[in-house]
Amino acid sequence: MIKVGILGLGTVGGGVVKILQERSADFEALLGEPLVITCVMSRRSHRLEELGLSKEIYTDSFETFQKSNPDIVVEVMGGDAPAETILKALESGKKVVTANKALLANRARDFMGHSKGEFLFYEASCCGGIPIISAYEDGLTANRIDRLLGIFNGTCNYILSEMTQKGSDFAEVLAEAQRLGYAEADPTFDVEGIDATHKLCLLGSLSFQGSVPFDAIPSQGITRLSPDDFKWASQNGYTIKLISIGEREGEGIFAGTFPCMIPSGHPMAHVGGAFNAVYIEGDQVGELMFYGAGAGERPTASAVVSDLVAAAQSRARVLSKKVFSEGKSLSVHSDRDLQFFIRLKTPDEVGVLSRLCDGFGQQGISLRSVDQAPPFDGQAEIVFITHPTTGGNLEKALDSLQSDGLILGDVFSMRILDL
Amino acid sequence: MIKVGILGLGTVGGGVVKILQERSADFEALLGEPLVITCVMSRRSHRLEELGLSKEIYTDSFETFQKSNPDIVVEVMGGDAPAETILKALESGKKVVTANKALLANRARDFMGHSKGEFLFYEASCCGGIPIISAYEDGLTANRIDRLLGIFNGTCNYILSEMTQKGSDFAEVLAEAQRLGYAEADPTFDVEGIDATHKLCLLGSLSFQGSVPFDAIPSQGITRLSPDDFKWASQNGYTIKLISIGEREGEGIFAGTFPCMIPSGHPMAHVGGAFNAVYIEGDQVGELMFYGAGAGERPTASAVVSDLVAAAQSRARVLSKKVFSEGKSLSVHSDRDLQFFIRLKTPDEVGVLSRLCDGFGQQGISLRSVDQAPPFDGQAEIVFITHPTTGGNLEKALDSLQSDGLILGDVFSMRILDL
Repeated sequence: MIKVGILGLGTVGGGVVKILQERSADFEALLGEPLVITCVMSRRSHRLEELGLSKEIYTDSFETFQKSNPDIVVEVMGGDAPAETILKALESGKKVVTANKALLANRARDFMGHSKGEFLFYEASCCGGIPIISAYEDGLTANRIDRLLGIFNGTCNYILSEMTQKGSDFAEVLAEAQRLGYAEADPTFDVEGIDATHKLCLLGSLSFQGSVPFDAIPSQGITRLSPDDFKWASQNGYTIKLISIGEREGEGIFAGTFPCMIPSGHPMAHVGGAFNAVYIEGDQVGELMFYGAGAGERPTASAVVSDLVAAAQSRARVLSKKVFSEGKSLSVHSDRDLQFFIRLKTPDEVGVLSRLCDGFGQQGISLRSVDQAPPFDGQAEIVFITHPTTGGNLEKALDSLQSDGLILGDVFSMRILDL
Repeated sequence: MIKVGILGLGTVGGGVVKILQERSADFEALLGEPLVITCVMSRRSHRLEELGLSKEIYTDSFETFQKSNPDIVVEVMGGDAPAETILKALESGKKVVTANKALLANRARDFMGHSKGEFLFYEASCCGGIPIISAYEDGLTANRIDRLLGIFNGTCNYILSEMTQKGSDFAEVLAEAQRLGYAEADPTFDVEGIDATHKLCLLGSLSFQGSVPFDAIPSQGITRLSPDDFKWASQNGYTIKLISIGEREGEGIFAGTFPCMIPSGHPMAHVGGAFNAVYIEGDQVGELMFYGAGAGERPTASAVVSDLVAAAQSRARVLSKKVFSEGKSLSVHSDRDLQFFIRLKTPDEVGVLSRLCDGFGQQGISLRSVDQAPPFDGQAEIVFITHPTTGGNLEKALDSLQSDGLILGDVFSMRILDL
């Protein structure tokens, strides 16, 4: 019998209990002995009955939990509280499965740097049900990963997919997403790209085998996209996605999370709804994409329980331990030559367009196309597509045009990735 | 030092040697000791110099190879000859990595039924660089897999993608694919769906945890598709792909390889060129798709070398051993209710269409749509789309219409999967 202790009976914890019950015979057949829940620590004692768990295995104290001496600790309670329990479990040679992204972001080096740190399993912390951590640990080890592209946030992808299909406003779709439970009441963390960048740090570290510092990575959100941007994209063969990108560049990496236009024929362009995708280019394998549900009770619990089985089979996370405990901090370049889509408003006056073009030219920015909508109310909206330039250059040009009074209000710009 | 013996220096073997050389420092850092090629058996001694291998580690005899006592045997020579060497290696507690699909198809039970059968690694035998076997073994174990859909043959997918894009004839695109090296001189094995069905058997066995008998599975090829079929598909929101399908059905499975129309919005519809994809529905994780290169020197060698690292880390293939050594033969249903696309020619006579519709009706087949092209040369081409019906029913209806003289020449039919 393999004794399983569970910390947390929230959404994911409940899913874990259900899978362990529903598929217990299969796990016993695979492992040669049953996985048995011997202790549950949670504040939610009211869920015991609903989940068919005996009161005798319940506790609300970390101490009692530790005394129950589980072989594997499953941490699905979130927050910082379980940190010491995790460390003690590793110290006493137990395995730990966690879905706690926040805790990993802060303490990965403490946990994995532990002498038994290879027995920390954390598949569920990244892209829910997509088995991406285990792919890095097992099926992809022959490769040096040169590029990582991710659609890492289901909320954003749901909103962008709806805006693409229905031509609706951001605010309208966000409200609908909140009604449907695809977006939180305070959606900042998701729609500003922060959650996606957290995952970029985790998978970027595994990809480029060093530590990717969150603070060095720019995150641009999706709140300023307008229905017209989607119209322009679709007419020009592009699809708008929130893309997290990491690429080897010399000894460092280029990395960031940005709303981007990508070619509509690219497999990432067809990742719809609340789905996630991880796209990798390896020096040997070439292009690979993994697509699946990035969140939700069952997909996340699928990752936790698969890790539980891997823990029972001692499938050590050797690469993770190496990267997170020994990996040097990678230098991050947050800017590089890319094409930009720029949408801005100008006064409707003769000669403005030529002065705008001059302004870009003075920063060495050459233009691929210019589209001007019919002027309205004394203003003209213009869309510029640049040839490759840096975000820094672009900012300088726009600052100078703004101080010359050639731009009214805010400018919206977005990278074009010609994948 | 981990001693690696390689059987075969063909395309894949050469790729394996190159990766081991290029990334030796990385593998040593990950494993704590180097992977060293200590013996190579091959008929291709002429490749030693090109690959930078010393003549001293070369042999052309299985006996000498065995005496070299490698820790891990890498079998990339193909054919049946290495079977005894593989069995002897497993017997003496060594690990074996193989890319040999044909050998696995015949001897999987012998190899994996061995008491050390969990140390046979075979990622490269299925979908090249896509790390799908390791996903079944590690990241997906929480799931009961209910459905498997595959684009398993790169040659077919290349041909179908070209026919979709260019509106060309099958024969024309095949000739081009042969020129480019995407198709063999004798393409039967690929274009008739046989290779795809081999992979369906392998991944179907892992998915449904029983043995999937090749002989019970229908394979329909892509040779009879016409440019008009692609036109109809595109006008109706479908994309044509060669799909291998397996689905749980009672205690058995529904399985087959067929050219199919799938909705153009489905992620599988965007798998272009020579790429492969594996699409899975798990009871917990929901939909998942893996996309990547299914063949070629480096992608296949990526799978072999990743297996080599997994072997060095003793990541046993426990599920594979269980399924292939103990799994019962699954009963296969090769027919089920699906919509069909039917293209046929009739004599251009008054009343024929109504008699055709009657004929379908007599077999209980109801029609969703009928498209008739302008008649030419006394013949009319008609496309019928049925509501769901079985292939068996359809065959009966067509046989009866043919014997009534209402159909001229062969009928082409294709399943529509409304995924």
